[in-house]
Amino acid sequence: MNKVSLTGNDYLLVYNVFSLVVASMFGAFVYFLLNVSEVAKKYRNAVVISAVVVGVAGYHYFRIFSAWSSGEFNEGYRYADWLLTVPLLLIELLIVLGISSEKRRPLAVRLVVAAVAMIALGYPGEVSTDDTTKWIFWVLAMIPFVYILATVAGELKKATTRESAAVAKGLRLAMILLLVAWLVYPISYLFPILFGESSQMAETVRQVGYSLADLLAKPVYGLAILAVAKLRTAEEAPSLNS
Amino acid sequence: MNKVSLTGNDYLLVYNVFSLVVASMFGAFVYFLLNVSEVAKKYRNAVVISAVVVGVAGYHYFRIFSAWSSGEFNEGYRYADWLLTVPLLLIELLIVLGISSEKRRPLAVRLVVAAVAMIALGYPGEVSTDDTTKWIFWVLAMIPFVYILATVAGELKKATTRESAAVAKGLRLAMILLLVAWLVYPISYLFPILFGESSQMAETVRQVGYSLADLLAKPVYGLAILAVAKLRTAEEAPSLNS
Repeated sequence: MNKVSLTGNDYLLVYNVFSLVVASMFGAFVYFLLNVSEVAKKYRNAVVISAVVVGVAGYHYFRIFSAWSSGEFNEGYRYADWLLTVPLLLIELLIVLGISSEKRRPLAVRLVVAAVAMIALGYPGEVSTDDTTKWIFWVLAMIPFVYILATVAGELKKATTRESAAVAKGLRLAMILLLVAWLVYPISYLFPILFGESSQMAETVRQVGYSLADLLAKPVYGLAILAVAKLRTAEEAPSLNS
Repeated sequence: MNKVSLTGNDYLLVYNVFSLVVASMFGAFVYFLLNVSEVAKKYRNAVVISAVVVGVAGYHYFRIFSAWSSGEFNEGYRYADWLLTVPLLLIELLIVLGISSEKRRPLAVRLVVAAVAMIALGYPGEVSTDDTTKWIFWVLAMIPFVYILATVAGELKKATTRESAAVAKGLRLAMILLLVAWLVYPISYLFPILFGESSQMAETVRQVGYSLADLLAKPVYGLAILAVAKLRTAEEAPSLNS
């Protein structure tokens, strides 16, 4: 593990942001658990998966916070977290997109394989201190990254013409959250190359950036997914919604 | 992080109050969880949010207590907590006020933005040791503070003419709790300016004050919200109340 390189108010800001993320993830965990039964059965798994995702992320941020407060840092926690949660985030989107389950399965397999490849390719560059190695793996990881976003955007486009205006709006919001949050990762990744490994500013922005992106991509995105599931429930099974 | 400045019985009083708050928050968490299904579906989210709020606050007081008992203090935990819980406290009030969901959404957005602005503006003054800086950010944070209370009071007045006497009474109680608890925060904030950073008495009153205000504003307020939700359930869906 690496020694924490930040000091003073930079150290404290990252410390407080990590703690805030722990609280947010576990708060969201409780919220999603209690909302599982509020949606129709066919969308329930999307909310269950949201709960699992923020629970797993809460665990990892708890570890990250503990390591940070004892002066150490292990970027590996993030990659373990993403390896588990990114495929799940894609699957919950597929559930509320309203694709028939026969079509959903091959799509899910392709997206999960791409997500695992993306994270596995990012890791060697993340832990390397050589800029060339970092760039090579960044470019390699961007291939599945672009593939995933393009595939999801295509499915979303089909869905928005098929679904009601309210559902389409909710799906678009989820997609925008995914896009904004996901763009933070490849940019944050480049900070040590662009500003040097020892830049306090770059490391602070990178850690805060990853943390905010995780908040957008997990609990906030989960709320958008839940909203779509509730709208679909209201449209398809109004009796559940009294 | 700062060293804890209190000693002797002052240190011990704050130590015991922090532990009491941890126990209260987790006790309230269990209580709210078990009461979610006791209210009609449309008010259920208010009780769910109460549970999330006291759970998040319990986490933060656990951290505050741990830091305090190892001789350190980090005011950042309070601000992280408020950033997450204050918007939620306002949303749960809106749910039981009986505003239609179309009107509720823009109101919720305005109140959440004001709450985040209030807390974000309080923080630079809180961590500064300069009295002028403290005053400037106090005044700035008071603007959204007054806006929030005025808006909520206006909505409450409309609701009390619309609703039954019992529901109106419950809503007024929730509003009084909010007002009393919330007035503690800006006053406690001023203690280091009024009595000096090194006054043991001022720091003791401030920490105990924040803690009691958090108890009123979260679990006790949550009980008032739950009471209103139960009254509404009894009026609107008597079958649920047997």
